[in-house]
Amino acid sequence: MHSPRAAEQSAVLRRPLCLQPASRAPRGAAGAAALQWQMDAALPDENAMNPAEHNRFMARAIALAVENVRKGLGGPFGCVVVKDGQIVAEGANRVTSANDPTAHAEIVAIREACRVLGHFQLTGCDLYTSCEPCPMCLGAIYWARPARVFYAGTAEDAAQAGFDDVDILRELQQPPVRRRIPMQQIMREPALEAFRLWQQKPDKVAY
Amino acid sequence: MHSPRAAEQSAVLRRPLCLQPASRAPRGAAGAAALQWQMDAALPDENAMNPAEHNRFMARAIALAVENVRKGLGGPFGCVVVKDGQIVAEGANRVTSANDPTAHAEIVAIREACRVLGHFQLTGCDLYTSCEPCPMCLGAIYWARPARVFYAGTAEDAAQAGFDDVDILRELQQPPVRRRIPMQQIMREPALEAFRLWQQKPDKVAY
Repeated sequence: MHSPRAAEQSAVLRRPLCLQPASRAPRGAAGAAALQWQMDAALPDENAMNPAEHNRFMARAIALAVENVRKGLGGPFGCVVVKDGQIVAEGANRVTSANDPTAHAEIVAIREACRVLGHFQLTGCDLYTSCEPCPMCLGAIYWARPARVFYAGTAEDAAQAGFDDVDILRELQQPPVRRRIPMQQIMREPALEAFRLWQQKPDKVAY
Repeated sequence: MHSPRAAEQSAVLRRPLCLQPASRAPRGAAGAAALQWQMDAALPDENAMNPAEHNRFMARAIALAVENVRKGLGGPFGCVVVKDGQIVAEGANRVTSANDPTAHAEIVAIREACRVLGHFQLTGCDLYTSCEPCPMCLGAIYWARPARVFYAGTAEDAAQAGFDDVDILRELQQPPVRRRIPMQQIMREPALEAFRLWQQKPDKVAY
């Protein structure tokens, strides 16, 4: 884990997180609360963004979360999707008010951003969410493929407030037959027909 | 892993999978293709279901998947939600035709079933999906909490047809800063306000 090779791989993996040259990183206790993200190295200038911009977008996601609880519309979660420095979609958790267990803030914001942008991918977008995404929302993020994700509260904060995120991730790591919601395979052979048709389809739209 | 205690836990975990007394389990090669599920022990009679019923519901999920590819509406996936022996909702993958990366068959069917049933939980429902759910859909299943899940194709079948499911699960298991889509924490302190409000709210609807 601590070989030079592993450290090198880690540095490569972490590079996209860097938002501006380290020499411009804010220092000192005064800036620490508002600017908790860490910078490791430089991104090209065209990708640099003033830290205040990140904070402004996250502040909006947090305001959506707070407003959502006050209005009684769902859980304490908000999210915004940003493209080219503009908010293109907002979302808040509407599970209980919309009778939709998938209506987490991130899913609501992703669906709305895709509607606005007219595409099923969030290429070049950033997602700001008031809490670390649950496994469902993480999966949705991978399918939507935004450039970056910023989150504020952690999965542990969510767990302390009574949300199952960590527990669900543990379940996903179990083989299907060992999960709390039992999952059983039947009829694999006939199901393969759909995959055969898909692979043979000349005009399919991959995603 | 193979201690008696582990075996005992495994048996307990697997019990809900049992669909009818093992003595009534179909045997022999003739029944094997249509009835690939395995039975371990008995469920109460009121929960017993004729294997032909399971096959009928899965055949419908597969038909939705096949029809979806033929019509060019999305990926090769279909799903039905069943309650009290009746299909209450159907779904097929509409990612590309609806410009919605979250519109996997399971998510579409879960949202529709919740709309029909007027609740954000699928208590007492079974879900039949033509392919093993991806991590996003598995997360959605845990939030919707159906009784059981039946699937036909495997994650490996999906991967061979070009879908990222296994890759996404691997990413979820990485810590946020090591993921391919970089994820960075900022502004945790102000975000905790939403959780505090939630925990103090006397009339909150938990989910």
